[in-house]
Amino acid sequence: MSGVSTEERELGTTFLPRFDAQGLIIAIAVDDATREILMVAYMNAEALEKTRETGLAHFWSRSRQALWLKGETSNNVLRIKEILVDCDQDALQLVVDPAGPACHTGAQSCFYRRLEGDALNRIVE
Amino acid sequence: MSGVSTEERELGTTFLPRFDAQGLIIAIAVDDATREILMVAYMNAEALEKTRETGLAHFWSRSRQALWLKGETSNNVLRIKEILVDCDQDALQLVVDPAGPACHTGAQSCFYRRLEGDALNRIVE
Repeated sequence: MSGVSTEERELGTTFLPRFDAQGLIIAIAVDDATREILMVAYMNAEALEKTRETGLAHFWSRSRQALWLKGETSNNVLRIKEILVDCDQDALQLVVDPAGPACHTGAQSCFYRRLEGDALNRIVE
Repeated sequence: MSGVSTEERELGTTFLPRFDAQGLIIAIAVDDATREILMVAYMNAEALEKTRETGLAHFWSRSRQALWLKGETSNNVLRIKEILVDCDQDALQLVVDPAGPACHTGAQSCFYRRLEGDALNRIVE
């Protein structure tokens, strides 16, 4: 992190992903066709490397403390179309082609509920 | 976290935001008009409470360790239209009406660069 100026990080052309104290960066998967946010997860350096290498989204599971190929059991992989990087390079937007429902609950997107007052209401089946 | 079943958290109608070990939850701001992701930040319980109370997005700055009303200096506040919650309730999608460019660099969105090979290329001015 040291040795890189804010200007270089924010306006430069060098990819300098900024992993946090836990070694993680936020990755948001967006459907290339619908632009809907499908899911949010974390990547460590290895997950990012595997994702770039294979073209399939890999994440780091904080609960399982393990590298995770999205779709390794469900086959619902996320094929990377492009990767966008935010200003301070601590978040990635993965524009993807999903092979099936992205959420482990079977929903297309993990964001299937809306907060209304103090209750969550399902907005999609 | 204890006392709440996975089923209740994932399929229920009760809002049970899951703050991580640092007391934070991911918040992704999306433009209600364009559906573009504008920015990603963290909220602690107080930021979430202030956001719901005022209808303006508040975040927790990890670098400054301070509560932060988005737009407090720039006036580019994010007016909340709706809040979507993900399956395990550790991420929020804020659908917002932005008063101006959401990024502190002056860009509409923080995601103004695409990773191409090993380089970042600006995709929007």
